[in-house]
Formats: sequence, structure tokens, C-alpha cells
Amino acid sequence: MTMTSRKIELFVPAITPFAADLSVDTARFVAHAKALIAGGAHGLAPFGTTSEANSLSVTERMAALEALVEAGISPQQLIPGTGCCAAADTITLSEHATRLGCRGVLMLPPFFYKGVSDAGVFDAYAHVIEAVGPDLRVYLYHIPQMSGVPITLLLIERLIDAYGAQIAGLKDSSGDWDNTAAVIAAFPQIDTYSASESLIPENAAKGGAGCISASSNVNPGGIRALIDRLNGPEHHALHHQVSQVRKIFEGLPLIPAIKSAVALQKDDNHYARVRPPFTVTGLEHADAVAEAVRVAR
Amino acid sequence: MTMTSRKIELFVPAITPFAADLSVDTARFVAHAKALIAGGAHGLAPFGTTSEANSLSVTERMAALEALVEAGISPQQLIPGTGCCAAADTITLSEHATRLGCRGVLMLPPFFYKGVSDAGVFDAYAHVIEAVGPDLRVYLYHIPQMSGVPITLLLIERLIDAYGAQIAGLKDSSGDWDNTAAVIAAFPQIDTYSASESLIPENAAKGGAGCISASSNVNPGGIRALIDRLNGPEHHALHHQVSQVRKIFEGLPLIPAIKSAVALQKDDNHYARVRPPFTVTGLEHADAVAEAVRVAR
Repeated sequence: MTMTSRKIELFVPAITPFAADLSVDTARFVAHAKALIAGGAHGLAPFGTTSEANSLSVTERMAALEALVEAGISPQQLIPGTGCCAAADTITLSEHATRLGCRGVLMLPPFFYKGVSDAGVFDAYAHVIEAVGPDLRVYLYHIPQMSGVPITLLLIERLIDAYGAQIAGLKDSSGDWDNTAAVIAAFPQIDTYSASESLIPENAAKGGAGCISASSNVNPGGIRALIDRLNGPEHHALHHQVSQVRKIFEGLPLIPAIKSAVALQKDDNHYARVRPPFTVTGLEHADAVAEAVRVAR
Repeated sequence: MTMTSRKIELFVPAITPFAADLSVDTARFVAHAKALIAGGAHGLAPFGTTSEANSLSVTERMAALEALVEAGISPQQLIPGTGCCAAADTITLSEHATRLGCRGVLMLPPFFYKGVSDAGVFDAYAHVIEAVGPDLRVYLYHIPQMSGVPITLLLIERLIDAYGAQIAGLKDSSGDWDNTAAVIAAFPQIDTYSASESLIPENAAKGGAGCISASSNVNPGGIRALIDRLNGPEHHALHHQVSQVRKIFEGLPLIPAIKSAVALQKDDNHYARVRPPFTVTGLEHADAVAEAVRVAR
């Protein structure tokens, strides 16, 4: 059965640390990335939502990705986000990642225009896939609460019909488990990730591929332990631990709070900086952030 | 009184024509732009929503803007859109437009992240304004149904407090007249544009500055006639004409339909092309598009 043969993995949408002038702090970016892998992550999905990717320019994203590879992280452990509003930018980033040998790219649909048709979103993906060529592997990024442009079942079907194994997976950040379950059931040939580690047991049981979760920046060890012992007697306790951490962050401004927690873990306030339109986590959330760090591992 | 002294103007968010390979068709872009000015527009707001600006790269936008200036359109008649997700891109475009001598720039807030605070959006605008410098004039772009990030009254107030006359205006594309009226009443010192020509009488009576409307690509002459005779006996008939055209487009996929109408007016199908995620207007809308063109002038 599909559900037992698929490897369950954690890919971390690594935060992007910034210097005092808000430029990308490459040294801290690399240090955090290496710590995540050492801490249990199977790989990284840098330049996702949690990474503030959409606040980075194309050149910033390419330079930071190269820094990860130069630091010795295997490109096969990297699924960088590449989806921009303008196809030219998405193509540039996707070609770059493919040339570097990345496992694939996590691709948002063009997300400024709302109420567009599946046919139009298909055209957008097709345009990029054909421009980059057959080496590209696409992980579709379903995050309608931010993008406003859902990745529907019909769209996935059309893309798989047209591009086969080039459609490698999907990240479902909708928070709608019924949707994730429907994607896994309809398309067992692709890797479907949940955006919450709390859903790993259901995701794995259904035949999914694991999770790509914001809070895995803070709790990679806990999530990895759950994945490794999903069938063991400790799984209830391990699931409780990851859900506890997740739940704390769900009550906070998510991305600033994740960065504050990483800063606290590393005792290095530089990690807490965010680019506008985010603002640094307020003191009123300091106790909650500290509690998340206390529970995390 | 403010309301009688302000000049009422039409700025057209000029469509961006594409060649068969979907590259920007600069010759048709310039030809359409010049025709709009000749047809009655006071100026252009290229690279707005209707221009598919968010489907264009930074370099495409700069090249196309330069083509307008080189073609003899006065930069003082140009308010190009420059707001991107990444501040670096917004700064590049805004510096470029300012250096060219444009009247100002129409600036979206960073629009990927939703649910952000006014303080964060203020920081985003402040970062760009301070990077570009004192020659920049900003027209704030309120289009929450696309951006997901509203420009609130409190945000406008904070920006004017901090940057005075550098905050030159606002385009209200929300379709919420009460909001437009509130902005005009609270901030008479800035130019507030409606996104619908149907609202020009109310906008002018309240002290607004006119309109920046998608359908003005098709009906610049009608809208200009209304503006020029707002106090004349013909104003009812003129208002009826512009509202008729507007209403037809409101029932269609807006941007593809506007481009199809321009193609029909010019008897040149090249103008109908769109970039994904849009699709070319379907035949089922051909009659409505033809009717809009028949009524337009």
C-alpha cells in the first residue's frame, strides 16, 4: 500500500534572518539552516511564507540559496520557494534552483489577481514548467488564505496529466484537513505535505509525505522524534509535545513569534528581526514565546 | 472651498499589450498610451491592476515606462504603479519613476502577507519613502479585494504626519463610496481618486480629484466629456453614458474584457492578449464587449 511505503519527512521553511539594516544575514541564515538539519530536519523548504520570501528580491533569494549549497547542504535536501507574481521572476528562480540540483521547488501560483480560473492558473504553471524544462520538479503551494488563489483538485489533475512526474508534490497550508485528505486520496503519486506537525499522524496514515511547518524552525527535534516513532508506544506523548508547541504559536503573530523563539533558543536577538509589513513580536507575547521554547526540543 | 478649487482629472491605468510570445509589445503600448491622451485623458497611471503590472518584471516595467517618456508623453502626466511584495523592487521602480520626473507613483502596500498591522504597513511605506528620498510623491493604492491589505484612515494620517506633501494622493478601488468620502473629508490636502467613472459627480462634489478607472481604456472621451461639463446641463446624459459602459464591464472578467474591447476599437486582435493567470475573453462575452465599444467614445 502507498501509505506504508512512503517516507515521512520534515522539511523546514527556514526563517530568513536580517541584519540591522534589514539586509539578509547570510551567516545566521546558514547557521540556522545547518542547525535545523543537525536537529532532525530531513531537509529545508527555504523561501516559503515563514521565510518572508515574498519580502525578498529575486537576487537576494538566489544568493541565499547558493550560500546554503556552498555551506555543504545537499541540494537534494532543498525545496526552495520560487513562486512570484511575475512569471519572469518565477522562471528565473526555478531555473536557478534546478541548475543547482535542488530536489524541487515550492511554487505559489501568481497571487495578486483574485478570482482567476483554474484554466488561467494552469496556464501560469505551464508557462513556467515549459520555460524551465524537464528537469524541474514542482511542489504546488496551496495557501489560499495568503495567496487568494487556491490549488484545486481539478488543477492538480490537469497539471499531472500534462506534466506527469514533474508535478512532484503539494504543500497544503489551508489548514483544511479534508482538502489534504482529498489530495492524498486522488493523487497518491505525489508527495503531499501538511503545514502542521499536529496532522502528521493523519497525514502519514492516509499516505501523505509529512510536513512543512513554520514551527519546525523551533521544534525540529520534537517533530523528527514523532516521525521516527509514529508506530511506537511513545507516539501519543510525542504527538502531544509537537501539538503543544504548535498551539502556542497559533495564538501569536506567527512569523514574528517564530523568529523571536529562534532568537531566544540561540540567545541571539538578531534572529528576531522582521521586514515590514511585519513588526517584531511585542513584549506582551514574551511569556508565550518562552513557553514554546521551553516545550520545544 | 477645497471642493471647487481642485482640478478633476482622469488618469488611465493603461493596458499592457503583449506580443505572441507574451513579451511586452512596446509599440502598441506607446500607441495606445498616446491615443488615450489624445482621446481626453489628463494622464496615465500605467502599471496598475488593469495593466497586469503584477505580471510584469521590474525590468519590463522600467523599459515600458521609458518608452512612454521617449515617445513624448510628459512625465508630469504619468503616475506609474510601483508597489511590489519586496521592498527592494518597489524602491527600484519608485526611484526610476522619480528620476524620470513622473508626477508621482501609485504604490500598493506589500500584498502577500495578510492580517498585518497598520504599524507594519506604515513601516513598509516609510522604508521605501526614506530610501527613495524627498522627491518621491506617493499615491496610496487601496484595493483590498486584490491586495488583502487595506489602506486605513489611521495609516493615511500617520503617513501624512510623517511625510507631509510626499503623500500626494490615494486611489480607492474598494468600490466602497463611504470609504472614499471619508478619505476626502479627512484628508482634503491629498488627491483622492475613485476607481469608477460612475462616481465622478460624487467624487468631485466632495472635493476629490477624479478617477483612475479600468474602463477609461475604452471610454476616455466619454469620461473627459463628463469631467469637462460636470456643471453643465448635459451632465446627466454624460453620466449615463459613462455608467452604461462601466456597468457592462462590471459583468465581465474585467481585465480580459477591457483588452478585448480595445482590440475591437482598434481592429487589432493583438491588444486582446493577456498573461496568465488571465485567459482571453471567451466568445460568450463578445456581444457584451461589442456593446461597450458601441456606447463608448
